Amino acid sequence: MNKYALISLVGVIVLLAAALVGTLIFMQNRPVESRAIQAIYDVAPMEPNSELWGRNFPNQYSSFLRTRSNTVDTTYGGSSKFSHLEKDPRQVILFASYGFSLEYNDDRGHENALTDVREIKRVNETTPGTCYSCKSSDNPGLWAEMGMEAYDKMKFSELGEHIDYSIGCSNCHEAETMRLIVTNPALEEALEAQGKDWRTFSRQEMRSLVCANCHVEYYFKGDGKYLTFPWQNGTKVEEMYEYYTEVEFKDWEHPEALTPMLKAQHPEYEMYTAGSTHFNAGVACADCHMPYVRDGAAKYSDHNIRSPLLQPERACGQCHNDVNSVTTRVSLIQEQVYNTKIATEDAIVDAINAIKGATANPTSDQTLLLEARELHRQSQFYWDFVSAENSMGFHNPEYVLKILAESTNLARQAQMKAAQAANDPSLLETDTYYLNQEAGAVTP
Amino acid sequence: MNKYALISLVGVIVLLAAALVGTLIFMQNRPVESRAIQAIYDVAPMEPNSELWGRNFPNQYSSFLRTRSNTVDTTYGGSSKFSHLEKDPRQVILFASYGFSLEYNDDRGHENALTDVREIKRVNETTPGTCYSCKSSDNPGLWAEMGMEAYDKMKFSELGEHIDYSIGCSNCHEAETMRLIVTNPALEEALEAQGKDWRTFSRQEMRSLVCANCHVEYYFKGDGKYLTFPWQNGTKVEEMYEYYTEVEFKDWEHPEALTPMLKAQHPEYEMYTAGSTHFNAGVACADCHMPYVRDGAAKYSDHNIRSPLLQPERACGQCHNDVNSVTTRVSLIQEQVYNTKIATEDAIVDAINAIKGATANPTSDQTLLLEARELHRQSQFYWDFVSAENSMGFHNPEYVLKILAESTNLARQAQMKAAQAANDPSLLETDTYYLNQEAGAVTP
Repeated sequence: MNKYALISLVGVIVLLAAALVGTLIFMQNRPVESRAIQAIYDVAPMEPNSELWGRNFPNQYSSFLRTRSNTVDTTYGGSSKFSHLEKDPRQVILFASYGFSLEYNDDRGHENALTDVREIKRVNETTPGTCYSCKSSDNPGLWAEMGMEAYDKMKFSELGEHIDYSIGCSNCHEAETMRLIVTNPALEEALEAQGKDWRTFSRQEMRSLVCANCHVEYYFKGDGKYLTFPWQNGTKVEEMYEYYTEVEFKDWEHPEALTPMLKAQHPEYEMYTAGSTHFNAGVACADCHMPYVRDGAAKYSDHNIRSPLLQPERACGQCHNDVNSVTTRVSLIQEQVYNTKIATEDAIVDAINAIKGATANPTSDQTLLLEARELHRQSQFYWDFVSAENSMGFHNPEYVLKILAESTNLARQAQMKAAQAANDPSLLETDTYYLNQEAGAVTP
Repeated sequence: MNKYALISLVGVIVLLAAALVGTLIFMQNRPVESRAIQAIYDVAPMEPNSELWGRNFPNQYSSFLRTRSNTVDTTYGGSSKFSHLEKDPRQVILFASYGFSLEYNDDRGHENALTDVREIKRVNETTPGTCYSCKSSDNPGLWAEMGMEAYDKMKFSELGEHIDYSIGCSNCHEAETMRLIVTNPALEEALEAQGKDWRTFSRQEMRSLVCANCHVEYYFKGDGKYLTFPWQNGTKVEEMYEYYTEVEFKDWEHPEALTPMLKAQHPEYEMYTAGSTHFNAGVACADCHMPYVRDGAAKYSDHNIRSPLLQPERACGQCHNDVNSVTTRVSLIQEQVYNTKIATEDAIVDAINAIKGATANPTSDQTLLLEARELHRQSQFYWDFVSAENSMGFHNPEYVLKILAESTNLARQAQMKAAQAANDPSLLETDTYYLNQEAGAVTP
């Protein structure tokens, strides 16, 4: 072999080796989903057991399992199930006689959803099966098998016999393709009512929309307790309130004010998508709550879903190179929202006390009293839209603060209307919450 | 001469020429201030005539002159002197009997400050000279010559004979060095009272602080109408309000509510520096309102000071590569703030009407009535701190919305307290502004 042939041969070998290494690195770095079709184990459609999915996706699965043992809290939220009622006893008055005045804890991770819903004091023999809708990876299969109508009509205790797993893979993924999908029929129907088809959504849009399988405002429609999102007029707070007015829905009647009340439920999706700066910039829920991580050569989205504040370098640091500065800003925003929210609660408590007083007065003008209750109902729903939302305002700060300003204004108007109804200015006391506390009159 | 010597010679010539061109380009691109000491024309200390400064700094000067002819408005502000009272007649009620209810226009550019203050209906024979404090480049010289105390004690008409120029170079720059300096003695004193020395400030800090020569909350202290910034307790709205309470100051008495009122004045510096995201990120006022421009090979800061929304590519585009997206966000923030601000005004108008009613009732409890007026006073100052500030909330959105929520709450409490004072629930009507408008009872 002559010298030139030898050099050529060595060159070809080096090129091939480099191409091979490059290909391997490229494949290692491709997003998880594009590897899905190479799954080694077959997973049945809507398989409820996440462990079986985990054999193909060990990184995602092992990170997901960590949602069970997280206990670290942030300033206003986090991963433990601390009591909102103990932290802020005003809420005992606001939710008086409703389940949320008995026990109202901060949410723990997805792996604990089933345990926590079964242990909460809000659940009793009359609780409908609908309450399982966001708690189990058995749901997609059960909905496919029996339909959501039958599912919702069952009693919680009865349905519970069919439910073994907490939230899992099947709540967001299609087993055959691993693509993100809408699994909750209520979300499918709510989107349809708006003329939207999630099958046309981009993958980035789906990285938020799958969260809306659960993290939304909803109610139980009719005697069948049919799970329904109040999105017919839109997803802004005033549009949902308008919907509830149209369908004359109430969650319960406040025992002291006799107001037909609404309980808002974790409307994270609606809050975030209402023109927030992160949403408008194209950021998806998963970008912050499930940031990509590297473990050795593997790259995957962290399925240990939790507050970005618990890993700001990874969550915020993908886009922001000044992580300390942005988390300081989050703290400032949340502190401003928290203080404003507490002031709103004081105003609503004052309104409840005034309406209670006017209700006890037999000479009260009943028309004005109804107006006072309507103001109370709206005020408290607006407040709860912020309070029940899991971000202490950060998901959309200006929108949240505008809503709280409106809620406070409505609460004060409710109080005034009650005083007008009873023709009794003594109902205009403010900060009665604190006065009651001092007098020992408030009993949680 | 041999061939090598010739080549060497040509090489040396090329090198020298390149070095010269490089040096010229470098000097051309150096910041303006570092060229100041090379001024061709001597400018006297505190020279009031900006044209003389302009001979050394033609780019800055010619751009500054354009502040005279700007007329383009933004959605909520801009460069024309549209009437705030016509745009929002609630303010006629809020400022009743005070000068601002006679004529209250949006500010035009710096070159028009002198003309506009002389033409405004708020000025009359009793107007103190202090009102010139932010209107003229004659001020630094006059303050040095006569002292601020004597300056403030003069009548507006009398002092006016010494004043020929609108705002100009001498209000922010030191002639000898062109560095940015505090020229307003009231700012110097306010900083001293906080233990701060602006001479230790960085240049970037001075690029905001010089704006505070004028764009701040202030009042006229005592009979001498001594220009004073209420910063003794701090520059947050509650700290300034606390200060005003301590010194028992009022700007005027509201003729219908008999409330001792405060008028807030364009507190841009205080609002912006109260933890806003841009301030915390190290952005100075001048970065957005005086962005650097290139004109041919010259680079200078645009002295045509105006809303960044009138040149977003240049102003926002320095840091944000998604200019359309950020200006859309500005619009959304301002719309939310504007709507919340109007709701606050309605609440204050209702409070004024209630206090007026209670005042007219001879049997009213005078202690409660005083409490109602105190609530009105605080509510309106908080509102005005937002309303008089020139950014419709953008300078610090969450802070602004929190303040408006508090103001609304205080206004409603003022209304309730008035009804308690008069023992008269008929004072609890809401939206009386509109009712009055319909009945033709409101006359601007």
